[in-house]
Amino acid sequence: MPENYLERIKWLRTLMRAKGWDAVVVTGSDPHCSEYPAERWKQVEWLSGFTGEAGDLVVTLDHAGLWTDTRYFIQAEQQLAGTGIVLHKTRVPEQVLIPEWLERQFGGEGLLAVDGLCLGADFAQSLPGTVLSVPDLLGRFWTDRPAVPQTPVYTVDPGESRREKIDFLRDFLRKTDCDAILLTALDEIAWTLNVRASDIEYNPLVISYLLITQEDICWYVLKEEVEDPQTKATISILEADGVRTLPYGDIDYLASEFSGRLFVDAATLNFQLYSELVGAGVALEEGTSPVGARKAVKNVKEIAGMREAHLQDGLAMERFLYWLERSVDAGREISEWDAAVKLGQLRADLPGYLGDSFETISAYGPGAALPHYVTPHDYAPVLRDGGLYLCDSGGQYECGTTDITRTVPLGRCSALEREDYTLVLKGHIDLAMAVFPEGTPGCRLDALAREPLWRSKRNFGHGTGHGVGWLLGVHEGPQDIRQNLNPMPLQPGMVVSDEPGIYREGKHGIRHENLLLVVEAGQNDFGRWLAFEPLTLCHFDTDALELPLLDRSETDWLNAYNERVYRTLSPQLPREVAAWLREKTLPV
Amino acid sequence: MPENYLERIKWLRTLMRAKGWDAVVVTGSDPHCSEYPAERWKQVEWLSGFTGEAGDLVVTLDHAGLWTDTRYFIQAEQQLAGTGIVLHKTRVPEQVLIPEWLERQFGGEGLLAVDGLCLGADFAQSLPGTVLSVPDLLGRFWTDRPAVPQTPVYTVDPGESRREKIDFLRDFLRKTDCDAILLTALDEIAWTLNVRASDIEYNPLVISYLLITQEDICWYVLKEEVEDPQTKATISILEADGVRTLPYGDIDYLASEFSGRLFVDAATLNFQLYSELVGAGVALEEGTSPVGARKAVKNVKEIAGMREAHLQDGLAMERFLYWLERSVDAGREISEWDAAVKLGQLRADLPGYLGDSFETISAYGPGAALPHYVTPHDYAPVLRDGGLYLCDSGGQYECGTTDITRTVPLGRCSALEREDYTLVLKGHIDLAMAVFPEGTPGCRLDALAREPLWRSKRNFGHGTGHGVGWLLGVHEGPQDIRQNLNPMPLQPGMVVSDEPGIYREGKHGIRHENLLLVVEAGQNDFGRWLAFEPLTLCHFDTDALELPLLDRSETDWLNAYNERVYRTLSPQLPREVAAWLREKTLPV
Repeated sequence: MPENYLERIKWLRTLMRAKGWDAVVVTGSDPHCSEYPAERWKQVEWLSGFTGEAGDLVVTLDHAGLWTDTRYFIQAEQQLAGTGIVLHKTRVPEQVLIPEWLERQFGGEGLLAVDGLCLGADFAQSLPGTVLSVPDLLGRFWTDRPAVPQTPVYTVDPGESRREKIDFLRDFLRKTDCDAILLTALDEIAWTLNVRASDIEYNPLVISYLLITQEDICWYVLKEEVEDPQTKATISILEADGVRTLPYGDIDYLASEFSGRLFVDAATLNFQLYSELVGAGVALEEGTSPVGARKAVKNVKEIAGMREAHLQDGLAMERFLYWLERSVDAGREISEWDAAVKLGQLRADLPGYLGDSFETISAYGPGAALPHYVTPHDYAPVLRDGGLYLCDSGGQYECGTTDITRTVPLGRCSALEREDYTLVLKGHIDLAMAVFPEGTPGCRLDALAREPLWRSKRNFGHGTGHGVGWLLGVHEGPQDIRQNLNPMPLQPGMVVSDEPGIYREGKHGIRHENLLLVVEAGQNDFGRWLAFEPLTLCHFDTDALELPLLDRSETDWLNAYNERVYRTLSPQLPREVAAWLREKTLPV
Repeated sequence: MPENYLERIKWLRTLMRAKGWDAVVVTGSDPHCSEYPAERWKQVEWLSGFTGEAGDLVVTLDHAGLWTDTRYFIQAEQQLAGTGIVLHKTRVPEQVLIPEWLERQFGGEGLLAVDGLCLGADFAQSLPGTVLSVPDLLGRFWTDRPAVPQTPVYTVDPGESRREKIDFLRDFLRKTDCDAILLTALDEIAWTLNVRASDIEYNPLVISYLLITQEDICWYVLKEEVEDPQTKATISILEADGVRTLPYGDIDYLASEFSGRLFVDAATLNFQLYSELVGAGVALEEGTSPVGARKAVKNVKEIAGMREAHLQDGLAMERFLYWLERSVDAGREISEWDAAVKLGQLRADLPGYLGDSFETISAYGPGAALPHYVTPHDYAPVLRDGGLYLCDSGGQYECGTTDITRTVPLGRCSALEREDYTLVLKGHIDLAMAVFPEGTPGCRLDALAREPLWRSKRNFGHGTGHGVGWLLGVHEGPQDIRQNLNPMPLQPGMVVSDEPGIYREGKHGIRHENLLLVVEAGQNDFGRWLAFEPLTLCHFDTDALELPLLDRSETDWLNAYNERVYRTLSPQLPREVAAWLREKTLPV
């Protein structure tokens, strides 16, 4: 219903004229700069109808534009049709990002209104002109806006106590000569306090702020209305460790009450709070929070948990793929949505399953050409005999987090499908086989996964790998494997995805994804060596392979991996599934 | 003779005590931040005896240290023995660079003396403490210090006139709102004015500064004593294009005479001149000179010239390798030095040869394990039957510049030698075969050349590739292919080397180097594509290969390359050399 969006933009322009604003910048984030915000903060979606996971809007009196990256170009063009909102492409060589675009429009003289709660201080400061923070800007018109979520909070035991973690942060304060650190990123707070909740779909996080000084631990959290015994017990446990619980809204008093030197990470601190702190004269030490790099290196218990989670997840995946193949072979009518539901049910039966780690992408044929396709609930495309089916999914388990993509042939595939399928797998394997010296950042390995595609002038527009949290966000930094020159070295204990792909609009989409654990690989005259160990346990289908495109070492890797999957999973699979998996994992 | 160096350091400390300096920082550079300075500015060598091409010294009252990178560790340890000077390793994970080391010594409070002429403004500003510029600091003791060189200057025609280049710079001034640009890097000046000389060995450069305004072109150049007709003719030609020639020393008046906004590149502007400009209140616009990126993209005529230069150079190389093999087979006693002399003679016979592009590295067996080995004039090791011989060399020709390394077996090789030989070649080939999207910086391709070595936990400590000038420096930026995350994209027309290696102290050293031209490789739905075309024409020896370590695509590349070398060169080679080359280039 583009009418809605036209009306909302129209209302916004009326407000802009009344206030004398030149532009309004609306981002898809929340007061904690989360990648995935709760419904309340899906402002870009409310204003434009665009549901992609990354997108920012700029509205001026004569232009409305959505900035998003390669992953969402096709989706954005479809969803913006009729709204008058223009797509501005990012992560392409000719990109003009929002700050530069605004500079060209207003020459640095513009009066730019933003909801400062939903904008990182870093990003706000990159905007040219006068930036005016108007908290809850859209709330004036968005009358049925959802409330801030409040779900029960529970504790977890990841092998390191919250006392140890707080000691680590207090050490950091001493080293940086600061009196306090304000954690604003939700995954950093959850990690530090060893707490989880379900405030954001798929992300087991608690919407809150955390202030740590040498004497005090203040947790600003919205749990006034939560009467459940679990939350109460959690708060008692935290109190015993010296954590004081304050109302979420009390963060507004921080600026006036705090004195001393405060460490903040401007990448996850919202512009409204940042402005209040600066306005009150608080001495800010800006830098990268030390939690990110520490959290990314999993400890022994977390690693054991991740291995167990992937074993469980692999059982669900293999049962799912068995069911899928049998169903399609039998000619049963199964839609993309049915398949996603089936996989969800299989996961839900597993011990320790808490929920999915993101919304399952279940896509057949051309649908899979959208790298972040959203499977429609109603009238979802039906799976046919022939062509490729892609499924990107993951689970949150008590012992860890999973994220896996498998693309499987449903019967006959075209020569191009087979070639693409094989070259993407070749890239996946080349990265998985990599050995590299310590100190190597992921960006230096990215080309290993791409060169097999590049050689035949094919490519994919998303990153090759992202970090993954332990019972936290399925995307976490600071490490990654992508085009951007991110200098963070890969370190033993880090988890990254390995997910090259290829997407041909109107034809097919392919992605092969495992999670990899960075492991030690010995030391010699040339230094210390690292390598990857696949955590994911689910076979790669060999039916769609063009074998001559694989080198011997790649085929060897594939056979060894599939054999390991079979040996590890088959004892816990129903007999008929195990027998089927035996066939699927025979060496090529 | 370490006594000399001990005495010099002692003298320096006496001066330091008298002046109250905490440290003296001595770099291996000249007033133009050249990578290869003339003899006059080889200060590190004079003070320490270390002759490596990269090294900086810091002397305090109780410590003397030389900072150099992986390439020179073995050489530095040998040359510094007995001097009391300690080696500080750089380009290793645990490196402590000079600024950080000084910070640890003096906590930012030190009084640091430098010869500001021989230190880039960027580097000087990175030093903690008070930096005192003392021009010609060592001259007080270095009584037989060589003069600034003055060699004849000639013009070249690289396909773009100096007027076009000056127009390009004047456009740049308009865009950046500057009144003048001061070029300080010698290769940038030679490129802009289309002039060359031999002021620095192997580098056809003119020691000078160049100031360009919208009205004026001022060339500060030390040619007062040069009476030769060529230099006079050159100056007349330049005058006709509006270039005024001023004495080199007059650059000292620039600070007091110039008014307006001056663009400078602090990476190649010396600290002394920088300080004078700042002291006189000149408005400096600091940035990267636009000449570097423009110069790196060769035009049609330069590319044709580079191809011709490599054809000529290949003829010399093949005659050399033929002579070498025949001589060793015949049991003649040939030293590393004899071999280098022979190659120099063969190059000198070629049309358009102007000189070598750097000092030939001719190294047999363990000598080759020093990546930048200097072949001794006297008592050079003799080549034996068996093992590997490495030769890294290049020529300056009227039509371009070459740089090539070949490692060849002299008879039987050990299993390790063969494995290393093959894996390094595998890396060389994998990079040479790369196809990549436009916008890709070289650092993203570096791992392609390394992964074949990494897989068996081997590596090399130098970069994989450097840019190469057209009848200019054999090392030029801004592009490269190495570990550092240099964001400069590779662009069609750029030239880079492809030179992976492996070095085993006391055993052997291997490097395989071609120069590659970046070329267009078409456009499709996935974007614009680039690839490499090898410029170098000289076969890779197949006798030392462990064929099972190469994939089919790598063997195909090697066979096609060797065949191309044979077909291109054989018509111009003596019959017996052509017949030999036919044998050497048979497919494997």
